[in-house]
Amino acid sequence: MNVRLRLDIAYDGTNFAGWGKQPGLRTVQGVLEEALATVFQRHGEAPTLTVAGRTDAGVHAVGQVAHLDLSPEQAASLDERRGQSGAESLARRLNGIAGLSSDVVVTSSSIAPPGFDARFSGIWRRYEYRVEDATRPRNPLVRGYTLSYPAVLDESAMNAASTGLVGLHDWASYCKPREGGTTIRTLQEFTWQRQPDGVLLAHVKADAFCHSMVRSLVGACIAVGEAKLTAQDLIKLRDDEARTSAFKVAPAKGLTLVEVGYPPDEQLAARAEQTRARRDAVER
Amino acid sequence: MNVRLRLDIAYDGTNFAGWGKQPGLRTVQGVLEEALATVFQRHGEAPTLTVAGRTDAGVHAVGQVAHLDLSPEQAASLDERRGQSGAESLARRLNGIAGLSSDVVVTSSSIAPPGFDARFSGIWRRYEYRVEDATRPRNPLVRGYTLSYPAVLDESAMNAASTGLVGLHDWASYCKPREGGTTIRTLQEFTWQRQPDGVLLAHVKADAFCHSMVRSLVGACIAVGEAKLTAQDLIKLRDDEARTSAFKVAPAKGLTLVEVGYPPDEQLAARAEQTRARRDAVER
Repeated sequence: MNVRLRLDIAYDGTNFAGWGKQPGLRTVQGVLEEALATVFQRHGEAPTLTVAGRTDAGVHAVGQVAHLDLSPEQAASLDERRGQSGAESLARRLNGIAGLSSDVVVTSSSIAPPGFDARFSGIWRRYEYRVEDATRPRNPLVRGYTLSYPAVLDESAMNAASTGLVGLHDWASYCKPREGGTTIRTLQEFTWQRQPDGVLLAHVKADAFCHSMVRSLVGACIAVGEAKLTAQDLIKLRDDEARTSAFKVAPAKGLTLVEVGYPPDEQLAARAEQTRARRDAVER
Repeated sequence: MNVRLRLDIAYDGTNFAGWGKQPGLRTVQGVLEEALATVFQRHGEAPTLTVAGRTDAGVHAVGQVAHLDLSPEQAASLDERRGQSGAESLARRLNGIAGLSSDVVVTSSSIAPPGFDARFSGIWRRYEYRVEDATRPRNPLVRGYTLSYPAVLDESAMNAASTGLVGLHDWASYCKPREGGTTIRTLQEFTWQRQPDGVLLAHVKADAFCHSMVRSLVGACIAVGEAKLTAQDLIKLRDDEARTSAFKVAPAKGLTLVEVGYPPDEQLAARAEQTRARRDAVER
C-alpha cells in the first residue's frame, strides 16, 4: 500500500514564478519535485506534490503544506537515521540536495494521518501582509517581504475597514474570476496592527481564498488608509459582487502564507470528502 | 562658513564590499558619495562622508551615522520643501537618485549640532548578531541577515559566557591587529537571548570596536553554545591577549550596526577632542 507523507515548507517567493509547476519557469513545486526525483531516482516514478495553498509569483510562505504518496519500495528506501524515522529523514534529504537552494526549506516531513489531503482536508488558511508606510524610513533588511508604500497610512481606519468585512460572502469583487469556480468564502479574520518596528501587519484568515483575494483585500484597505475609500465603500464594493477598479491589487512581495489549519485526525477524511463534494457541486 | 550635516543611514550589506570606498568595488560610501556628487553637480566639489562605524563587507546597518560638510553655496542650493528645511530635504533627494538602489536608505538628514563629528564624537556603538540554530527549521525570509548554524546551541551557556566578558580590557585575542592601533576597549554589554521566533539574538555594545571584534566575540560564544569552549576559556583567551585559532570569526551576514551613541550637544566638541588626542597618543 502506498504511504502518504505530509511536508511542511517555507520559501522566499522572490525568485519563484509561484508554487505551481510551469514549463521553463522556476517554481517551488518544480524545484521540490526535482529534488524528490533525485531522492527516489532508483525507485520508480517520482512522486508529485499536492499543495494546500497555491501561491502566486512572488508570494512567500512559512507554513505551506503539501502531501505526496510513496510506493512501498520508495517508502522502504528511506533510511532511519539519528533517531529519525524514514519519513522524518526525507526533509533532511531534500534540504541537502543542491537544487533546493537557500530560498526554500522543507521544515518537516512525516507520515500523514489516515484520510489526510493537504488541499481538501484544510479548514482554513492564514496569511500575513506587511507594509512599511511613510511614517518611518524604510528598513532595507526587510524589503524582500515587506511592501514599501510612499504615503502615511491610518492603521485604525484600515483595521476598522478590515474587521468590518469578515463573514460568509460572495467575494467576486475581490477576486480574479476563474471559470466555473465559486467566489463564496468565509473571511474569518482580517485585522491591521502597527508593529513596534512601524510595520503595518495584516492577519487574514479564511476557509479558503479565491485567486488574488488577499492582495485585493489588502489593496482596498490601503486605499482606506490613504482616505481614498471608506470602510463603507469596501462593504458596498463587496456587496456589488462585481470586479472593480476602485482599488489596486497589492503587490505579491508583502504577502506570506503563514499557516494552514486541519481538523482533528478523525475528521480529516470526512472533511476532504465534503470539500470535494462541494467543489463538484459548484463546478458542475 | 561651511555647514555640517548629519546623515542617518540603513543598508543591507549583502551586495556591498563594506562601507569604505574601494576602487572598482560597490561600497556604501561609494554609492552615497556618487549620489552626493549628483545632487551638488553644479555647486563645486562633491562632499565626502566621515562615518561612525566602518562596516566590513556583508555587514548590515540600520543605525549608521555619517557627517559631511557643505560649502555655503551647496547649503543654499538645497530647497526647503513640504515643510522640510534644506538640510532635511537632502535625505529625500539622495533616496530619489537611481544609484541609491533599494539596499541603502538615508533615513534622515539634519544640520549637525556644533562640534559634532560622526566618528570622533561617538561614545558607543551597538551591534546585533542573529543566529538560527538547529533547534528549529530555518526561515528563508530572514536568511539575508541571519546566520544559519547547523547545530543546536545552548543560549544560557552563551549568555553566561558573553556577560562574563564585559569590562575594560585588551581585546587583542578578539581582533585582527592593525598597525599602530590600540586593542583596548570597554565592552559595555554583551548578551544572548532566544527570540520568540527561535532566533538567537546578541546585543553587543562598546565604546568602540577594533577590527572584526564583534564577529570574533560571536564566534567564541557559538563555540561555547556547542560546548566546545567554556565561559572560562573565553576569559582566559582574552587575558592571553594574543590572536588565537580556538574559535572561528562568525560570518558577516548575521551582523547589523544598530545604533551609535553621542553625548549631549554641549559635550560633543570636547568628546571629539578627547578621542582624537587618545588616538594620537596611542598611534604615536
